[in-house]
Amino acid sequence: MHTVQQVDRSVYNVPMTARDTPEISSQSARERILRAAHDLFYRDGLRATGVDRVIAEAGVTKVTFYRHFPSKNELIRVFLEHRHARWLDWFGAALARHRAAQTPQDRALQALAPLQPTLEEWFCQPGFRGCAFINAVAELGGGLDDALPIAARHKQDMVDLIGRQLLANHPDRQALAEAAGLAADGAIVRAQTGPEGVRQALAGLQRLLTALDA
Amino acid sequence: MHTVQQVDRSVYNVPMTARDTPEISSQSARERILRAAHDLFYRDGLRATGVDRVIAEAGVTKVTFYRHFPSKNELIRVFLEHRHARWLDWFGAALARHRAAQTPQDRALQALAPLQPTLEEWFCQPGFRGCAFINAVAELGGGLDDALPIAARHKQDMVDLIGRQLLANHPDRQALAEAAGLAADGAIVRAQTGPEGVRQALAGLQRLLTALDA
Repeated sequence: MHTVQQVDRSVYNVPMTARDTPEISSQSARERILRAAHDLFYRDGLRATGVDRVIAEAGVTKVTFYRHFPSKNELIRVFLEHRHARWLDWFGAALARHRAAQTPQDRALQALAPLQPTLEEWFCQPGFRGCAFINAVAELGGGLDDALPIAARHKQDMVDLIGRQLLANHPDRQALAEAAGLAADGAIVRAQTGPEGVRQALAGLQRLLTALDA
Repeated sequence: MHTVQQVDRSVYNVPMTARDTPEISSQSARERILRAAHDLFYRDGLRATGVDRVIAEAGVTKVTFYRHFPSKNELIRVFLEHRHARWLDWFGAALARHRAAQTPQDRALQALAPLQPTLEEWFCQPGFRGCAFINAVAELGGGLDDALPIAARHKQDMVDLIGRQLLANHPDRQALAEAAGLAADGAIVRAQTGPEGVRQALAGLQRLLTALDA
């Protein structure tokens, strides 16, 4: 899951936008559509982004668009799957980087600590707009059948990564990783409210992770 | 802020819908519009709910609607202000109820514990669709100038209530209440993903609150 390229990315260049991910850098029509959809859906929301806007930004014809994506719901589904994979790649690489920066003693005493600087990287990225999956559930409710299971899987995979990378030999790994994941989600939605929210999110997260590590 | 009437409400009758709040039970046109908007905005989302739908549900004319609410943004703003007041009334009353159910010893050792059954009441209510303010920020981003400050104030008031009601004499009250608020938000967005999400939210929240109390 972690490539050298991803580990070397600078703090403000995490692959949260589709623009810099290798597999859609070539200019096939499908890739251009997906790139435009990713940027618009993440920034403006799923409902606020019309298919016409995606078509215009991607520079394709309507016929081409509908050949690749028969419906907006299908485009949303592919966007969520794509972002799920990209985000987890970044998240795993960032956790590994921040864990490697700890001393062996820190690793034993503050197993969950790398989660805080990892999320700080993301929160401080220009264009940060929260978690695409939390936002999708908030927007769509039961409006898109596929969104809820994809969101649930995204959070499950996030929790599993925390467990695997930070709590490998912990006797209570699963429950601890789930609690840390909840703290991360609370921090994500708080950070989404602006600079003061980011400050509160990072302070609160540190307090929660320190308490969990104790 | 807490009235006897609110304290006596049954578990599944928390004032999360506008339907049972006294100030909009009379049938003035403005009240009918606000009631319809509340139910639709909370259930279906802000963007998904058109003004025509609100007008139809409220049973008023377009002219009457626009006399009371010159724009949809104005209706959203009033909806958020209304829900803010109602939710905090319920939240304060529920915290007080669950704190009163603790023994004096519990209160000293598990100051934050009442937060868990309080949120459980809400999560298990039919029609629970998460926090209207987190959802508004997720949906609108910067699309409605008023939404971000109202959401920030809502979370600040939630944190202040936790501090005032559960941590009155705690030396580190503010930071602890902020961390507990973050845990609550993480639980809210997880619970929004369905029954399995509710289970994870309550288990994770218990773990976080126990760690903070230690």
